[in-house]
Amino acid sequence: MRFNKVLDGIQTYEAGKPIELVVREFGVAPEEVVKLASNENPLGTSPKVAETIRAHADKAHLYPDDSMFELKEALAKRFDVPEETIIIGAGSDQILEFVSRAKLDESSSVLMSRVTFAMYAIYARQQGARILRTEDYRHRPEEFIPLMERERPDVVYLCTPNNPTGDATSREDVLRIIEAADPETLVVVDGAYMEYAAAKDEAYRIEPKELLRYENVLYLGTFSKAYGLGGMRVGYGIARTEIIRALMKMRPPFNITTLSLAAAIAACGDESFVEETLRIHRQELTRYEAYAQKRGFDTIESYTNFITWLFPESLDSSEVADRLLRRGVIVRDLASYGMNALRITVGTPRQNDRLFAVMDEVLG
Amino acid sequence: MRFNKVLDGIQTYEAGKPIELVVREFGVAPEEVVKLASNENPLGTSPKVAETIRAHADKAHLYPDDSMFELKEALAKRFDVPEETIIIGAGSDQILEFVSRAKLDESSSVLMSRVTFAMYAIYARQQGARILRTEDYRHRPEEFIPLMERERPDVVYLCTPNNPTGDATSREDVLRIIEAADPETLVVVDGAYMEYAAAKDEAYRIEPKELLRYENVLYLGTFSKAYGLGGMRVGYGIARTEIIRALMKMRPPFNITTLSLAAAIAACGDESFVEETLRIHRQELTRYEAYAQKRGFDTIESYTNFITWLFPESLDSSEVADRLLRRGVIVRDLASYGMNALRITVGTPRQNDRLFAVMDEVLG
Repeated sequence: MRFNKVLDGIQTYEAGKPIELVVREFGVAPEEVVKLASNENPLGTSPKVAETIRAHADKAHLYPDDSMFELKEALAKRFDVPEETIIIGAGSDQILEFVSRAKLDESSSVLMSRVTFAMYAIYARQQGARILRTEDYRHRPEEFIPLMERERPDVVYLCTPNNPTGDATSREDVLRIIEAADPETLVVVDGAYMEYAAAKDEAYRIEPKELLRYENVLYLGTFSKAYGLGGMRVGYGIARTEIIRALMKMRPPFNITTLSLAAAIAACGDESFVEETLRIHRQELTRYEAYAQKRGFDTIESYTNFITWLFPESLDSSEVADRLLRRGVIVRDLASYGMNALRITVGTPRQNDRLFAVMDEVLG
Repeated sequence: MRFNKVLDGIQTYEAGKPIELVVREFGVAPEEVVKLASNENPLGTSPKVAETIRAHADKAHLYPDDSMFELKEALAKRFDVPEETIIIGAGSDQILEFVSRAKLDESSSVLMSRVTFAMYAIYARQQGARILRTEDYRHRPEEFIPLMERERPDVVYLCTPNNPTGDATSREDVLRIIEAADPETLVVVDGAYMEYAAAKDEAYRIEPKELLRYENVLYLGTFSKAYGLGGMRVGYGIARTEIIRALMKMRPPFNITTLSLAAAIAACGDESFVEETLRIHRQELTRYEAYAQKRGFDTIESYTNFITWLFPESLDSSEVADRLLRRGVIVRDLASYGMNALRITVGTPRQNDRLFAVMDEVLG
């Protein structure tokens, strides 16, 4: 059967390996598996949010309020923006898909960092758009601006902090890139890990409210990381209403579940969980920096809940990742991004103890 | 800002009004609201499934197993088909979206019944495809086959039982239409309400296994109706692997939530809940037929968990729906489908008592 031509060029996203797979394939006991591969919140689900989920379990047969009135109200309050500037997605991921389908076709191009979130390119390819990348994985205005001027891309992706590298772009640099964009270029500022960067250094904090000054900017945020709801698939986009109205045309009804909606609303009222998340993260991140130094690895300075270790030539990241996996420790190998590096989620103190111990075993 | 041309022609889906809205707008107490508008399971969530959800509430921070290994295994067993013939969607709805994006573009056409599930046309329009419809809302081979021969549509949608009318197409007629299709035409057999039709009359039962004989047929099913998980957004498609592989290219990672995955797996092992659902439904459906007869409304014979009342000219369906709404009873007006009719979910005995009482009040 014939399908659209664009399908030929599409590779599907390779998800981090789930705990179930390690149990199945390597016979590691589930309680022994340490998953530091998908940047989930190591503190788990906030107890308050878990309680809300349990209280709503009997409502799983009911479709959610498709207007998402309460969640938009909570986000509007949190970011001090009007409700009509907000769109909800099944993860901010789904909003990236809406962007691609609303804005791109086979005559389009998109610009992104050399190493950045894989879904930008996948969704762009689904529309047949051409992918342009910078040389550097960092989002440097010196590189982005001339490329934007020359290529007039339809969408520019600024992932800050950047995934899977962990570095961030300062507010000043983000605004410089935005100011240089053609009014017909949609600039997507993906702040999935923004809570971590903003807590680390105010110069890296980007507020969606400030971006509403621009007619061509979309800010993305998520409940999947600092808010501890990766499994619930809830993200949001904030932009001028003209952009939101266009994206809403691509939004399927009931795009988040009834329990996800309840959980996200509860999470908005539970900032102390985020604070605790950030506190433990800061403390544990220093251990990863120290371990890398002890071992002589370079690291990329982390503004996220993960750290990227750059390996010397004498070590092969795929091999190390595989050996860790067989011992029940799941991390993310960045070989498929062209880097001899591992991306490791900063876990709980106990998970990190295990990671360092197993790493010592593997490296000898 | 410019967006793709196709957006101009898109209207967004109008979801059934949620209980929260009736509470907000008409000041009806939440416990007084009776929602019979979205064909949710009136028995609610299966207690076993709700228990599973509660047991997994603490895992909301973890991404689901993106291979959906266990759920596919359970469905493969239930339908006696190979696992690689299965794709999971955020509702069968999302698989309709994959079909549209994998198969349609601005040079395509799709064929469907005059009155059928609204998302077929919405997703087709998102791709810029031309919509062809039969004259009759019923899926008659006499009408479908000549249109298919003349128009060579890229996709044909057979919704059986049909939503929002409630009638069904016999297995024999479905197979006749399939046999007449061009090999390049994808025939989608949407069995979202199949459990109800199959329980009512064996001649209307369609087994996905039988459809795997054809290279160009996709069967869709859902956990949203008989399985009582409308709010969890889990559906499935079953087809030859060539079709599944193409649709998988459009599937975003983690397209159902961690709790949805756990709930659907649990639901597969809980057939007694479905049996009880069907038993109570049969009993209550007869009351709707009797009420319509008493009032002199025509009805469409129902093979689903809802019934469609066709009003005489002296009654306006929009007006009746509005008056019911103000009294806290939510039903679905079919005026936007060009019918002077109401679609009413068959509820619990108590909900139905209320519907009849309020209907008596409204009609006088």
